[in-house]
Amino acid sequence: MMDEVHVIKIGGNIIDEDEKLRVFLHSFAALEGKKILVHGGGRLATRIADRLGVQQTMIEGRRITDGETLKIVTMVYAGYINKHIVATLQAGGCPAIGLTGADGNSIQAHKRTHPRLDFGFVGDIDVINIPLLQHLLELGYALVFAPITHNMQGMLLNTNADTLASEIAVSLSRTGNVNLIYSFEKNGVLMNPENEASVISTLTRKDIEKLKSEKLINEGMIPKLDTAFAAIEKGVRKVIIGNAADLADLLKGTKGTTIVNE
Amino acid sequence: MMDEVHVIKIGGNIIDEDEKLRVFLHSFAALEGKKILVHGGGRLATRIADRLGVQQTMIEGRRITDGETLKIVTMVYAGYINKHIVATLQAGGCPAIGLTGADGNSIQAHKRTHPRLDFGFVGDIDVINIPLLQHLLELGYALVFAPITHNMQGMLLNTNADTLASEIAVSLSRTGNVNLIYSFEKNGVLMNPENEASVISTLTRKDIEKLKSEKLINEGMIPKLDTAFAAIEKGVRKVIIGNAADLADLLKGTKGTTIVNE
Repeated sequence: MMDEVHVIKIGGNIIDEDEKLRVFLHSFAALEGKKILVHGGGRLATRIADRLGVQQTMIEGRRITDGETLKIVTMVYAGYINKHIVATLQAGGCPAIGLTGADGNSIQAHKRTHPRLDFGFVGDIDVINIPLLQHLLELGYALVFAPITHNMQGMLLNTNADTLASEIAVSLSRTGNVNLIYSFEKNGVLMNPENEASVISTLTRKDIEKLKSEKLINEGMIPKLDTAFAAIEKGVRKVIIGNAADLADLLKGTKGTTIVNE
Repeated sequence: MMDEVHVIKIGGNIIDEDEKLRVFLHSFAALEGKKILVHGGGRLATRIADRLGVQQTMIEGRRITDGETLKIVTMVYAGYINKHIVATLQAGGCPAIGLTGADGNSIQAHKRTHPRLDFGFVGDIDVINIPLLQHLLELGYALVFAPITHNMQGMLLNTNADTLASEIAVSLSRTGNVNLIYSFEKNGVLMNPENEASVISTLTRKDIEKLKSEKLINEGMIPKLDTAFAAIEKGVRKVIIGNAADLADLLKGTKGTTIVNE
């Protein structure tokens, strides 16, 4: 039985703001024990695509990852953002290694198929290479994942970072206690999106269905909550959603929204 | 004493041509034993900089890595090219992990200082993390290095890929036999740059000084040769320069130019 692992997703809005990212990485570096950071992409990929004149196609509200967009997200997520985070952690005294799913075949995925839509080079995860992750964690490295996977046939795939964090947490929880933290710019799941003090401190599946049916929950929050519930139902010990500035408190459970499996 | 390691630098012109890169990676994947691939950047970084409208400044024939250029080379080298290579190797049955110097503090460098010129974010290497490299090689991974290092204070640094390959080879040779291959689009060091059949099969330091003084050597070749000689003089067992399409023959010493320490 391996000991505790923290899997922490950092949202795009934090990545876009140097000072918020610096504060977050400082507290991440200070965390004791085994830890994995999963980062999203922020708006940088969109800005680079705009500047390169690569049109972003949206179908039914979802971004399509065509070949040019895949190149851009691989450059931005796995290149600039990942290495910037790794170098910052190293400078903060936190040994860290940056990875995509292609590195060491750490995360194998397949290109998503859909009866009507072609999302392009978007990956749905098949398997996490837990022995490799455990080995690197045992060596004392924090692992920093960019949301890029591969299909073992040479194709890189853009992969949802919330899902990637959840799948890593679920896979690792087969061999030990895992805490999954979704950190972003808000204080947690809010009763009133305009009021950061309206954090719902615990949420069960029943609560969330009720909030959904009464349309009291922010639409953008629903996929994150579904992913969070899937994680807790599949054996992750704690799932907490909250502000990246409160990382230590989130792990203690004194801030943010704790997802409860009951 | 660890066993043999192959350190192979692949030149930018190969990276720019899909078919040549595919052939090279196929033969790299097939190599037996421990191996490290160091890649340059090719013209993709320049093309992206052009498209982004980022002016490339040259001083005395050298490119200056300003802040915007550093972002671009980090994106292109550590992101797109590195992950494309890693995914292709994995698909070819060769377990591989892509790294920059920031990852696991594998290569620490300092920002170059020069009495008159400011090259910008360019790194000169201080130390290679040999225990980490050996550990990953022992696990059976090919290591794929992008030519980006860091200074352990959070700064990423653009680093010459020829030098990076040489420094890795020299450091590893303290603990075992290392072969260093500089592979590119030419058949080796040529007596006549127009004639690919005019490969000089072995070169000593004396030969090269003679060729230099008679201006019989391509100017662009001189830094590569100086790096090659430095490597062989510091304990690397074999240093061979030749065509990326002939990788297996280069390692056997039946093609290319072998640098001889005498």
